[in-house]
Amino acid sequence: MAKKSDCWVGFDLGGTKMQATLFDGAFKPLATRRKKTKDFRGARNGLLGIIKTIEDVIAEAGIPRKRVRGIGLACPGVLNLDRGVLIQSPNLGWRNLPLVAKLEKHFGCPVVIGNDVDVGTYGEYRFGAARDARCVLGVFVGTGVGGACIYEGKIFRARTGSCMEIGHMHLQPKGDLCGCGRHGCLETVTSRLAISAEVAEAAVRGNAPHIWELAGADLTNIRSRTLRTAIERGDKAVLDIVTHAAKYLGVAVASLVNILGPDVVVLGGGLVEAFPDLYREQIRKAIREQSMKPLAAGVRVVSAKLGDDAGVLGAAALAAEAYHAQHR
Amino acid sequence: MAKKSDCWVGFDLGGTKMQATLFDGAFKPLATRRKKTKDFRGARNGLLGIIKTIEDVIAEAGIPRKRVRGIGLACPGVLNLDRGVLIQSPNLGWRNLPLVAKLEKHFGCPVVIGNDVDVGTYGEYRFGAARDARCVLGVFVGTGVGGACIYEGKIFRARTGSCMEIGHMHLQPKGDLCGCGRHGCLETVTSRLAISAEVAEAAVRGNAPHIWELAGADLTNIRSRTLRTAIERGDKAVLDIVTHAAKYLGVAVASLVNILGPDVVVLGGGLVEAFPDLYREQIRKAIREQSMKPLAAGVRVVSAKLGDDAGVLGAAALAAEAYHAQHR
Repeated sequence: MAKKSDCWVGFDLGGTKMQATLFDGAFKPLATRRKKTKDFRGARNGLLGIIKTIEDVIAEAGIPRKRVRGIGLACPGVLNLDRGVLIQSPNLGWRNLPLVAKLEKHFGCPVVIGNDVDVGTYGEYRFGAARDARCVLGVFVGTGVGGACIYEGKIFRARTGSCMEIGHMHLQPKGDLCGCGRHGCLETVTSRLAISAEVAEAAVRGNAPHIWELAGADLTNIRSRTLRTAIERGDKAVLDIVTHAAKYLGVAVASLVNILGPDVVVLGGGLVEAFPDLYREQIRKAIREQSMKPLAAGVRVVSAKLGDDAGVLGAAALAAEAYHAQHR
Repeated sequence: MAKKSDCWVGFDLGGTKMQATLFDGAFKPLATRRKKTKDFRGARNGLLGIIKTIEDVIAEAGIPRKRVRGIGLACPGVLNLDRGVLIQSPNLGWRNLPLVAKLEKHFGCPVVIGNDVDVGTYGEYRFGAARDARCVLGVFVGTGVGGACIYEGKIFRARTGSCMEIGHMHLQPKGDLCGCGRHGCLETVTSRLAISAEVAEAAVRGNAPHIWELAGADLTNIRSRTLRTAIERGDKAVLDIVTHAAKYLGVAVASLVNILGPDVVVLGGGLVEAFPDLYREQIRKAIREQSMKPLAAGVRVVSAKLGDDAGVLGAAALAAEAYHAQHR
């Protein structure tokens, strides 16, 4: 059995920053450290960066290392969960990093890894907006569109890795080219990148003057907040584009309700954080109108509560779960 | 613990016929009885029909009733699994039938019910084409399109009922009207009914002379076997229509592979039984070309093996599972 004095490290490996948070046995945060991910080029340096950040957070909390009973990591990209290896992460440019083996050797405690969207949704299930629901569908809209499902207390996963790649549900066989190489995936319509591209087009045409003023036509300047500001200042075309994207996301979520029959749909990610009401409303409407009645009845649609902390909280909870499963 | 002398009844409640099979402790069939479902109008008569069929199969096997340790039923329509009630079954015209309570009272042993596609897929998982796979996606193409998922040994289900309504995945917002009241569900393109409608149109236009000869333009005459015969006799338009429908099913299955990451996809139902090679080939091609590589790798696509017995076998196995869970 775990004791109150036990501590857990949750680690969130993002494309922009990495964050380590040390939690006590009741998952109260004791210390947090962040570093810029891009400061660590390549998998070998990346590993050193992760180790250093965890070392720092333990030192900052001032606890003996042996009180750390487990470490959990939320990672982007393709993972082999059984072997504990980060196979490929296009955003980081890292490949074949045996995270679990390396970190277990260094820290002398059990280490688990999980897909970032899975782990964030697990965080919301354990501590946030979807607490204790029997079946949770997590939908995260940012640069891409990510999904996760927590089913009867566990992350729904594929044999060796993660699944719930809802951003690559195939909706329009003749649609736009997707990052995965196919045409018409959900991401090509509803991701922040797709929206930014459409908005930039409108700006060039003169239909989104505030976007033009705030960001020009450079997609990398058009962030979720930029969209929000432009709408607040009166860019009606931008509101139309975001609303259309949210409706389209609703088509996919309504199908997912038919497939998975979730009790709670948690919406998160940068775009949802910028437009929480718009997204909740459009997704609720889509489920009401497009899902089958017995499955639509009683689905709660909520916004994620934990923000940036979902990853570290979910990762720490996973580490504790794995520890308890071994010491039962 | 269950003993070898224990027996289980599997019951399959179909729109056309009902079938009860008595199995021994090793799931060897001891006796089978069938009746026409339409001989029992309304829920009350339906219940009597089910009871009579089960009584008959026990009598035929000549075993004492107390050796029957459990009864499992595969049912169409909307079920409340927790309360054991058949809420509504449009095909049967039955409503609010408390199957579990009534049958437990009559037979004095535990009774479980399940959705017909779920139970059939569970049968294939336990005894057929998907034995012991970690994650099985069942895809059954008949009058409609049904789906099921067996995940880590259990039927994936919604809170009170069944889910995996893959026939109502929403693919074409401006597509044909579906039986569920919306437009463009998968069923409107890939079900046998949708195919029959398209084929009848071709027959009227003079493009499917063998269909015209075999069935005229009446959809109720155009069964899966009719399609097969017309193709064998040279109706190229019919082959084109079936192939197109199988390709479209492939688009949905490729998305489902991205969502669920199954190890095995089991294809079954009347249409697949009529064209097993065509369906396996088109679905494999779609997964290869349209699913994400890490999820597509290693997915086995197989035809169902148990045919009409999948339901009774799955139902009997579910009854045994429920018994064991209670007597552990």
